[in-house]
Amino acid sequence: MGALHEGHCSLIRLARERSDLVITTIFVNPTQFGEEEDFDRYPRNLERDVALAKGAGTDIVFAPSPEAMYPGGSVTAVIVEKITEVLEGAIRPGHFRGVATVVAKLLNITRPDCAVFGQKDAQQVVVVRRMVRDLNIGVEIVVAPTVREADGLAMSSRNVYLTPAQRAEAPVLHRSLQHAEALIRGGERNPETIRRSVMRLISAASSGVVQYVSLADEGDLEECRMLSRGDRILVSLAVRFGSTRLIDNCVLDVSS
Amino acid sequence: MGALHEGHCSLIRLARERSDLVITTIFVNPTQFGEEEDFDRYPRNLERDVALAKGAGTDIVFAPSPEAMYPGGSVTAVIVEKITEVLEGAIRPGHFRGVATVVAKLLNITRPDCAVFGQKDAQQVVVVRRMVRDLNIGVEIVVAPTVREADGLAMSSRNVYLTPAQRAEAPVLHRSLQHAEALIRGGERNPETIRRSVMRLISAASSGVVQYVSLADEGDLEECRMLSRGDRILVSLAVRFGSTRLIDNCVLDVSS
Repeated sequence: MGALHEGHCSLIRLARERSDLVITTIFVNPTQFGEEEDFDRYPRNLERDVALAKGAGTDIVFAPSPEAMYPGGSVTAVIVEKITEVLEGAIRPGHFRGVATVVAKLLNITRPDCAVFGQKDAQQVVVVRRMVRDLNIGVEIVVAPTVREADGLAMSSRNVYLTPAQRAEAPVLHRSLQHAEALIRGGERNPETIRRSVMRLISAASSGVVQYVSLADEGDLEECRMLSRGDRILVSLAVRFGSTRLIDNCVLDVSS
Repeated sequence: MGALHEGHCSLIRLARERSDLVITTIFVNPTQFGEEEDFDRYPRNLERDVALAKGAGTDIVFAPSPEAMYPGGSVTAVIVEKITEVLEGAIRPGHFRGVATVVAKLLNITRPDCAVFGQKDAQQVVVVRRMVRDLNIGVEIVVAPTVREADGLAMSSRNVYLTPAQRAEAPVLHRSLQHAEALIRGGERNPETIRRSVMRLISAASSGVVQYVSLADEGDLEECRMLSRGDRILVSLAVRFGSTRLIDNCVLDVSS
């Protein structure tokens, strides 16, 4: 979606390492924004993005207009059920329909051998992987780790919306994920206990309003009832600072 | 969907003329049948189909199992709105969702330069063309004319369901399309008049129950209010003989 930061650049560098030819798609996709969301004010700076993408090793930047992507009479969508009805999908109805459709289009246009996505948008990764499998799209999905600021805040194009006070508080998301991990390493196996502890930490340390804290199966995003050895779980959360939503996550293996 | 007849073979021969390599997909797709429809009794004879497909010039037959096409956890569908809500789509809810999804999958698996469909399923052609355009699937859709029995009945795998008496009546579909064409050539411009005349002809000449007679724009399937010179219209109809549904159609250019 453009507004490139070091997180995006890390995806391009990973693609560069694996490929003879790297395409970066830049498209602020209107169909994945809700009515009340920030499509109009979403940061755009194509010239700067192209320079950053080239610097990170891209060969081609594909930056179509909305009219080119959705010509008159467009009536087709890709829908992914179940795994899009929770977490971000529950809060942002229609979001993943827009994401799945535009990703299918971009993959069909560019026809890559592999496509790199960021772990920052964890549910998007799960949805894209499932869509690719279900529709037999012949592409390998590669996931790059979340890139963080020095204080732990996950890089995001939306961080620019934060006031200085909110920006100072925002690293609490990452700290709270580390707290959840420490609880699990310490033997806690009740997701509800962990959820409550994480929410308390965020509320005590910031003005952020927690939208969800989730401990879910990494594959199908079903909420865990009790953690067991061998589980691979996605700990994810969404917190609002004023009108700015921040998300973050980590994937954990529950060991003995 | 297998149960190959001369209509299918004509598609394979057309593909053969245009291509170095021809793949025939044979798959009775469960997701495009309604609850009350004939999935279980749909005619299947893979050995015979493979022989016919090879005889018509196919290099490869791709005949996957339902389990291979829809492994556990499949949650993705391709939906096409508006043009799937009329005609066959109005009578067969979910049908075109199943068709669009399986065609997207088969195109992704086989990755052809062109794919041949039969004009017999006119709405399917419109839906597949739109989906291919909307999702940027890089394939040329080629349409082959309907192949008919000597008495005009359009070839269909479902013709085997007809009793001898119904089979004797069934050519009335084609005759009624010719009647509609004659009315238009004769200057009739009111679709409602043509529809009523076609329905009278079918009712007078057969036991068939008319489900619809449609005169619609060939591109977006919107029903015509009045025919005008230069219109390209799809005349289509569906008639039930007992529990067997037959469909047929023709495309007409309205001239002066």
